[in-house]
Amino acid sequence: MAEYIESLQRLAEQFGRLEGVGKKNAMKMAFSVLDMADEEAQEFARAILEAKEKIHLCPICQNITDKDICPICSDYQRDRTTVCVVSDPRIVLSMEKVREYKGLYHVLHGVISPMNGITPDKLKIKELLSRIADGEIDEVIVATNPTVEGEATAMYIARLLKPLDIKVTRLAYGVPMGSDLEYADEVTLFRAIEGRRDF
Amino acid sequence: MAEYIESLQRLAEQFGRLEGVGKKNAMKMAFSVLDMADEEAQEFARAILEAKEKIHLCPICQNITDKDICPICSDYQRDRTTVCVVSDPRIVLSMEKVREYKGLYHVLHGVISPMNGITPDKLKIKELLSRIADGEIDEVIVATNPTVEGEATAMYIARLLKPLDIKVTRLAYGVPMGSDLEYADEVTLFRAIEGRRDF
Repeated sequence: MAEYIESLQRLAEQFGRLEGVGKKNAMKMAFSVLDMADEEAQEFARAILEAKEKIHLCPICQNITDKDICPICSDYQRDRTTVCVVSDPRIVLSMEKVREYKGLYHVLHGVISPMNGITPDKLKIKELLSRIADGEIDEVIVATNPTVEGEATAMYIARLLKPLDIKVTRLAYGVPMGSDLEYADEVTLFRAIEGRRDF
Repeated sequence: MAEYIESLQRLAEQFGRLEGVGKKNAMKMAFSVLDMADEEAQEFARAILEAKEKIHLCPICQNITDKDICPICSDYQRDRTTVCVVSDPRIVLSMEKVREYKGLYHVLHGVISPMNGITPDKLKIKELLSRIADGEIDEVIVATNPTVEGEATAMYIARLLKPLDIKVTRLAYGVPMGSDLEYADEVTLFRAIEGRRDF
């Protein structure tokens, strides 16, 4: 029983609160900290405090940043007429890895989920509307997850933006590259057939 | 690319230094910290510093503890004539979970590994000898891992202790409970046959 070393137990509990960390791994991580040199552990603790302290939301796109305005919004090489709407800062990172998309982003910080008390007013939707009101944006690509809640959020935003006379698009749905059709789920296959294209 | 949020990147690197944490998971954990309330993140940082500050080695058994003398060594209900020698504090936790062993422990903090520069004098072996010199100990169970280095360490300690006229034993080797013999490796099977017992 690890319980008898209180401060080790407490540290393991802290690791256990992180996304995707189970009890056993949390204890492993706590032990890793004990194996560190004192200065390393201090650096670790400082990194936590610094990240929380320095990182805030970009006032334009609502993505997380440690600058006044995030590097994407302040990059005038990018296409400022296109905005990709995502649910979460993590998705921005995924999109940027592709190095294909050259427009801007808007981070909603969640999806509409009335069951969990997340109504549209809890998301950064009014901030999106006020960006659009500025007049520079021609197209909004709604890139929420292809889940029930993600779809509902996309529909909500699409309906909100349509009257504003801008193009509203969404990502293509279909079978993922490199996958085996034998194991594709029915909904994905249906979407792939529905969205079929000419050679 | 996450690189553009420096303090997030730095935090992810810190998580990546923990045992068994890959790059992707480290970033997930860093994001988890951002999702925490400020006080929660402060508590997390504090837990790291406290664990490092409060936890030290028990002067008797060399196990980690946040007390002057660890609760096992200071528990006079336990059998003080038997000492189980383990390589690592983690093993003490595993042994204690069984709730079967009632003796004391001695933690070596490593195994002999000349390739990695770990010679016997780097381990807590002289501390073990001085405990034995006190005269209370009748039996030493050497419970190092059944690996080449663990075995070599066990042999080294056994040879050192034999002349001191105390019983030196080791754990039974064999097939693990619930395992499938089809998949048991040859060495394990050999050890299991060698160590066979009457019904």
